Amino acid sequence: MTDFELMGAALDEARKAAALGEVPVGAVVAKEGEIIAAAHNTRETEKNALHHAELLAIDAACKKLGGWRLWQCELFVTLEPCPMCSGAIINSRIKRVVYGAADVKAGCCGSVTDLFAQPFNHHPVIEKGLRADEAQQLLQAFFVSLRAKRAAKPRWKPPVTP
Amino acid sequence: MTDFELMGAALDEARKAAALGEVPVGAVVAKEGEIIAAAHNTRETEKNALHHAELLAIDAACKKLGGWRLWQCELFVTLEPCPMCSGAIINSRIKRVVYGAADVKAGCCGSVTDLFAQPFNHHPVIEKGLRADEAQQLLQAFFVSLRAKRAAKPRWKPPVTP
Repeated sequence: MTDFELMGAALDEARKAAALGEVPVGAVVAKEGEIIAAAHNTRETEKNALHHAELLAIDAACKKLGGWRLWQCELFVTLEPCPMCSGAIINSRIKRVVYGAADVKAGCCGSVTDLFAQPFNHHPVIEKGLRADEAQQLLQAFFVSLRAKRAAKPRWKPPVTP
Repeated sequence: MTDFELMGAALDEARKAAALGEVPVGAVVAKEGEIIAAAHNTRETEKNALHHAELLAIDAACKKLGGWRLWQCELFVTLEPCPMCSGAIINSRIKRVVYGAADVKAGCCGSVTDLFAQPFNHHPVIEKGLRADEAQQLLQAFFVSLRAKRAAKPRWKPPVTP
């Protein structure tokens, strides 16, 4: 599979997250162009702070390949990784990371900080912006819908005093 | 339980890791002084890059408390958290982190970098050095034994040419 197709699979995962009412982020771990693991954000559904798409995909890849060093693997993710997921990429020795949209609030590939520029013991190749428009569009649609839901919710009003 | 006792429980976890031949790091998540979750590093045993003590303890705490926001919880860990675990602390909204020994190779509370000084959306209280000597001693004993094992291993020698 090409990079474009692998990011397509990550976008499909992001759509699964959206369908669950989750922030739409998806990820796949690939080895020699073949998908080893695919996952999407399930933080709200599973009530777990660790259930980001990348962490779940890395966990599944370790289990599938039977080792913690994913040095032959590449990660495709629709959104710039947060500190936790960037750290998991370093810890699992993934050789290349391709992400879509930038995350100005939590991104650790340059948006908030660049964790990969620090002197840790592993430095993957990082490539940004692949199919970023599609990833961004999914995120925007999700947040527009979230705001609409919140606006439609009846708010508590103080009782009218005579 | 006091901070000293909670770090004692984390040190007990680190000893469990050492007994498995793992880098001895242990962690507990506590709420109002009571242990909610305890875990130790099992990266080699479980062949999983994510199996750091902190990540396993946070995962167990989310499951036990049934939510991803651990804002009433504190984390006690024998070694300064790495980027992945520091990110997990931010993501899970843990209110206070107490660690023992510094990690000059991967520590993200000031040793390599200070992730908590970055403008992420959560800033826990960080306290360092509690029972650091005991944590450091466990780590040193582990690495001394590892080097001894490696030195004792017979090495391949090239055949003697006549």
